Amino acid sequence: MNVSELGEFGLIELLAEIVDSTKNPKDVSWQRLLIGIGDDAAAWQVDSGIQLATTDSLVQDTHFDLNIITWEELGWKAIAVNLSDIAAMGGTPKYALISLALPGELETDNVSSLYRGMAQIANRFGVAIVGGNIASANKTIINVTVLGSLESASPLTRSAAVPGDRIAVTGYLGLSAAGLRMLKQHLKFDAESAKLLRRAHLMPMPRVDEGRILLHHGVKAAIDISDGLISDLTHICQASKVSARISQKALLIHQALENNFKSDYLQLALSGGEDYELLFTANSQTINRIKKAMSCPVTIIGEITREKSGHVTLVDADGLSIPWQKTGWEHFKSQA
Amino acid sequence: MNVSELGEFGLIELLAEIVDSTKNPKDVSWQRLLIGIGDDAAAWQVDSGIQLATTDSLVQDTHFDLNIITWEELGWKAIAVNLSDIAAMGGTPKYALISLALPGELETDNVSSLYRGMAQIANRFGVAIVGGNIASANKTIINVTVLGSLESASPLTRSAAVPGDRIAVTGYLGLSAAGLRMLKQHLKFDAESAKLLRRAHLMPMPRVDEGRILLHHGVKAAIDISDGLISDLTHICQASKVSARISQKALLIHQALENNFKSDYLQLALSGGEDYELLFTANSQTINRIKKAMSCPVTIIGEITREKSGHVTLVDADGLSIPWQKTGWEHFKSQA
Repeated sequence: MNVSELGEFGLIELLAEIVDSTKNPKDVSWQRLLIGIGDDAAAWQVDSGIQLATTDSLVQDTHFDLNIITWEELGWKAIAVNLSDIAAMGGTPKYALISLALPGELETDNVSSLYRGMAQIANRFGVAIVGGNIASANKTIINVTVLGSLESASPLTRSAAVPGDRIAVTGYLGLSAAGLRMLKQHLKFDAESAKLLRRAHLMPMPRVDEGRILLHHGVKAAIDISDGLISDLTHICQASKVSARISQKALLIHQALENNFKSDYLQLALSGGEDYELLFTANSQTINRIKKAMSCPVTIIGEITREKSGHVTLVDADGLSIPWQKTGWEHFKSQA
Repeated sequence: MNVSELGEFGLIELLAEIVDSTKNPKDVSWQRLLIGIGDDAAAWQVDSGIQLATTDSLVQDTHFDLNIITWEELGWKAIAVNLSDIAAMGGTPKYALISLALPGELETDNVSSLYRGMAQIANRFGVAIVGGNIASANKTIINVTVLGSLESASPLTRSAAVPGDRIAVTGYLGLSAAGLRMLKQHLKFDAESAKLLRRAHLMPMPRVDEGRILLHHGVKAAIDISDGLISDLTHICQASKVSARISQKALLIHQALENNFKSDYLQLALSGGEDYELLFTANSQTINRIKKAMSCPVTIIGEITREKSGHVTLVDADGLSIPWQKTGWEHFKSQA
């Protein structure tokens, strides 16, 4: 059956059932929910404190290619990119609203798979899917809004970096962009690399616990890497009115990246985008304490400098600056 | 300049400036805002209580026609339909997040007009636009999420109608659908009717104050009329496991509708959709008190009956049921 045949209300009922049958009713978000899918708005009980909200869209043929990604992976990713934004504030994601624009001829089985992927990651992070909206369009667009809370007086922001701070990053960079290239160009790698790269691009794992650890250790400035390391570090520098100097040699490069992309692994790591790792700044002692508290790698890659221009400089082993043109990917500008 | 030339980040900056220069900084929502547009997520201070959230999309050529609606009106309407959902719960809207999918060749002036329309209605209701997302697509899709709060222990819901309740509705019905038909078919009416009908369709006024009045007077069951009177009353009946009987004669028909659509004003009033009036159920005494408290018309149009089937019956002056096929407009089903 396709979406047109089932109709809007039938589809909402089907999706509500998937959410309901897969949820963990013991999650706090579900326990505090008063009204979920099916009324004019969702309603839940909140404590006084700081509320976080973020929204992000995935547009067919702009952000995803249905020849590459499964519907279940797409559901996962659509939620993951929003959880990553909450993670970058140091928050705890709680509720999600899903807005779908779908072609009428789309099979409802695909929409069910999409929702199962969403429910999988939502449940993993204790997030309740509580509402949404379905409209018809000629291509699929998935818009997700995630609400979260902050267990602290102020969130991590892009604007709090100060000169002298060291710059650090969680995990490995460039794996997502490498995965996209592998999938698009049908590159053949060893099974382990192929699995790692595919997963990095299609089912990224948002650093929610890590964001909270940053906040807990007194970090003030952070961003998640969605546009690419250089581009997102530039966002921090511009918002904080500082500059940054990062060392090419300090970057932690995964073997799967270096082995399979010998000529341009560095380019992928610096500007690949969609890694959803956390980039943050703090003093060395704080970063060393954070390294012990996190189970993922944490690497110091440079430092914040005094110039207010918001410029990122990349230096080689001898401290000489390396010319750098490409500063990441903007949605409306053609990719170099 | 078009959207592609300005680029994603330039556009975000432009829109943030429109929001910032038009806001009323004395509004509570702005005063409690910690982080607005430009970071990974928005952040604001909340009190303990009930949080409301709703999301709705307007898709080009499905929900709006750029030959008919101006960009400013489109901005107004995209926010209005979401405020109406908060109103239907009896809540107070506070914050909005905007997700835009835009063609790269769109003029940025149009996007500015869109945001000015959004800012206009947002400011009127004390709502702060605090974040969003921009992506490229071949058609314009505007997705809005509105967060609100409830100054009461439980919201108005679709599922709280009980047998014996009278059914009432605010304002006039069918004006929006009549406006759409006038605009699409280039019908010529007197200036006053034309203005009223155009405004009803393109710049609906959400019944936010009225929703709060309903809650304050002890009403339990309500919905906003987006799909059409019959269809939305059916939603209430199905969610409440009751049925309804409404009287054709009781419907309040505006002269501009009756005069200009002599053959089918009733059809428009019953199933037109997008009126964004509030449909609610309560006992007669409560409704009479509400009539005095509201500045808009409030009309009793029928009553809730005991049958659990969720069926709506329309009766004529003699109490005889009138056959009724069309139960409103579903987004994926073709319109009769």
